[in-house]
Amino acid sequence: MSGEDERHARAVLSLVSEPGDWGFTRLARELGGLGLLEALHSDPERHEMLSAAAARLPGVDAEATLARAAAGGTRFVIPGDEEWPTQLDALHAPDPLHERGGVPIGLWVRGPMRLDTLAEAVSVVGSRTSTSYGEEVAADIAGRVALAGHPVVSGAAFGIDQAAHRGAVSVGGRTVAVLACGADRVYPPAHRRMIEHLAAEHAVVSEAPPGAAAQRVRFLARNRLIAALSRGTVVVEAAARSGALNTANWAQRLNRLAMAVPGPVTSATSEGAHHLIRTGAAALVTGGPDVLELIGSAGDHLVAEPRGPSRPRDRLSIRQQQVLDAVPLASGASTVSIAKVAGLGVVEVRKALGRLAAAGLVHESGDAWVLSKAATD
Amino acid sequence: MSGEDERHARAVLSLVSEPGDWGFTRLARELGGLGLLEALHSDPERHEMLSAAAARLPGVDAEATLARAAAGGTRFVIPGDEEWPTQLDALHAPDPLHERGGVPIGLWVRGPMRLDTLAEAVSVVGSRTSTSYGEEVAADIAGRVALAGHPVVSGAAFGIDQAAHRGAVSVGGRTVAVLACGADRVYPPAHRRMIEHLAAEHAVVSEAPPGAAAQRVRFLARNRLIAALSRGTVVVEAAARSGALNTANWAQRLNRLAMAVPGPVTSATSEGAHHLIRTGAAALVTGGPDVLELIGSAGDHLVAEPRGPSRPRDRLSIRQQQVLDAVPLASGASTVSIAKVAGLGVVEVRKALGRLAAAGLVHESGDAWVLSKAATD
Repeated sequence: MSGEDERHARAVLSLVSEPGDWGFTRLARELGGLGLLEALHSDPERHEMLSAAAARLPGVDAEATLARAAAGGTRFVIPGDEEWPTQLDALHAPDPLHERGGVPIGLWVRGPMRLDTLAEAVSVVGSRTSTSYGEEVAADIAGRVALAGHPVVSGAAFGIDQAAHRGAVSVGGRTVAVLACGADRVYPPAHRRMIEHLAAEHAVVSEAPPGAAAQRVRFLARNRLIAALSRGTVVVEAAARSGALNTANWAQRLNRLAMAVPGPVTSATSEGAHHLIRTGAAALVTGGPDVLELIGSAGDHLVAEPRGPSRPRDRLSIRQQQVLDAVPLASGASTVSIAKVAGLGVVEVRKALGRLAAAGLVHESGDAWVLSKAATD
Repeated sequence: MSGEDERHARAVLSLVSEPGDWGFTRLARELGGLGLLEALHSDPERHEMLSAAAARLPGVDAEATLARAAAGGTRFVIPGDEEWPTQLDALHAPDPLHERGGVPIGLWVRGPMRLDTLAEAVSVVGSRTSTSYGEEVAADIAGRVALAGHPVVSGAAFGIDQAAHRGAVSVGGRTVAVLACGADRVYPPAHRRMIEHLAAEHAVVSEAPPGAAAQRVRFLARNRLIAALSRGTVVVEAAARSGALNTANWAQRLNRLAMAVPGPVTSATSEGAHHLIRTGAAALVTGGPDVLELIGSAGDHLVAEPRGPSRPRDRLSIRQQQVLDAVPLASGASTVSIAKVAGLGVVEVRKALGRLAAAGLVHESGDAWVLSKAATD
């Protein structure tokens, strides 16, 4: 458990900074919460980013925020806590191309699930304007993954996210919603009942402090957490500009598994998923078994190669198959007649019919050869 | 043009052998048609395969077969002919794993299209039990590919094959049917009108001699020709045991492009296509433009990266976007009110609003900031 001074310092930092501000999260990681707060007080002019945060210091009361959060069932989990999901530390890898990034200063969490149990989690995300096809597939994947013991992480948004949470809940699995607004708030408002249920039975998580509104840029910061919390991210439906593509890109950048579910090429909501697959940014998955195989779940979920049932004829030589095909379906036929249909010599055909009879595929009835039941299965 | 003796010898060989019999096609390639025919006569006991073919020699009359074929509009094209599609010579690569293979002894062709114009052809194949989704996509791809000048090769089967031929014909493009039965016959019988149309305006091709029936093993030999004739093979819908997978495997083995169109993961007829993509055996394509790009067609068919329209807000900093998001949609708001909603300092917000105004995204109206039209596009 981290010290309460450090927790208090990080609560202040959470209140004066923007989620996933890469410069800020990097300094917090390097100086620690107490160190960065000290720098804000002592040397705010060193950097524009620090001076903006320092200017907000007088308006925040971390003590009161922590107390109100606790009263509402929200805890503030910080690096060093036993509950801290250490897989997030991979976010420290410097990535100068992106303004968002870094290990969160802390996570505000509402709900009984502990974040340190998310190491085997799978994220399922996708379009807000999903089709019933996508929702069905997302719920099915989430359900199978959750049944196999993997918590399902998503963003509580309309469409695929909602279907993913529901799929996990409906099989009695565990699921976590990562929000772009404060963990004490609800976004989208129409999902109040679902989010309150998740907060009561599972967990609702946010990098933004209590009271924060769901601003557009916070969704980008949030997406990196969905990718970083889980072993792999499954994109179910995503149009060309979907935030789910952003999440998949984060998964790839963090060396997590990025997966995408194909759909009809005539559906605009599958365009982004197809793009991810085509460019090699994501692996094609067709359902829960594929996902479990890729994330290396227990062996009993391994995917069978899709193939039709094996048939006796598969073990025959080409010549024997030709002879078998020449035995008429409706009635029997003589060796000479079969040879004529097969376009083969009578001697060859007689030999082949003998082998087919031995294999139980034909039998003689009077002076005619007849197909046995095994040959027509 | 090959000599008429060689053509006659190969016609005999075509009549006594099975299409794509790897041992036989290899010998024909190595000894020539005349050489192999001589071996059949002089030393038929050297190999079981030769003795079986030799035993059939007395029953065939190549002269009469060639004459009847010519009378019915069918010519026999052999290696060395000007019309010979030399891309088939790639089939000579030894492949001991497969019973079928090799360069055909000759091709029986009905129709005005010359086979040496197929160098840029594209094959479009798939399930006989297709869905209307698959047929629509196949016809669309075939149409676009044909419009760009690429002949479309397929197998005249029910479902995807038929849609592919139709798609090419409907735009005035060129298309070739490769049959498993003789080029003078029709399989499936229900496609008589389509196949007769192709024979009248395009080309119908078979490795099997006139009169040959469409036996099961001949479809496997036929599939290798569909793959070998074209620059690339597109699989539109294919269940787990579809012959189209066999064609795609041939394309891959011959270093041609293997492509597959995804579909709903809930559709069994897309299972084989997804398997090809997932295992890397085929590239994912979503339509004609993808296919044209992959086969390296003219530059004007290059595929645009799918992306939503670019918007002015994409060029803003994160801070400016936050401020822009805080300007209410319905009415204007004061700087102080915007700062409160954005959770930012008034000084920062004033600076950001100035830049947003310069970018034409907001403007002042009285003492309030109002969103400009450009910001809401």
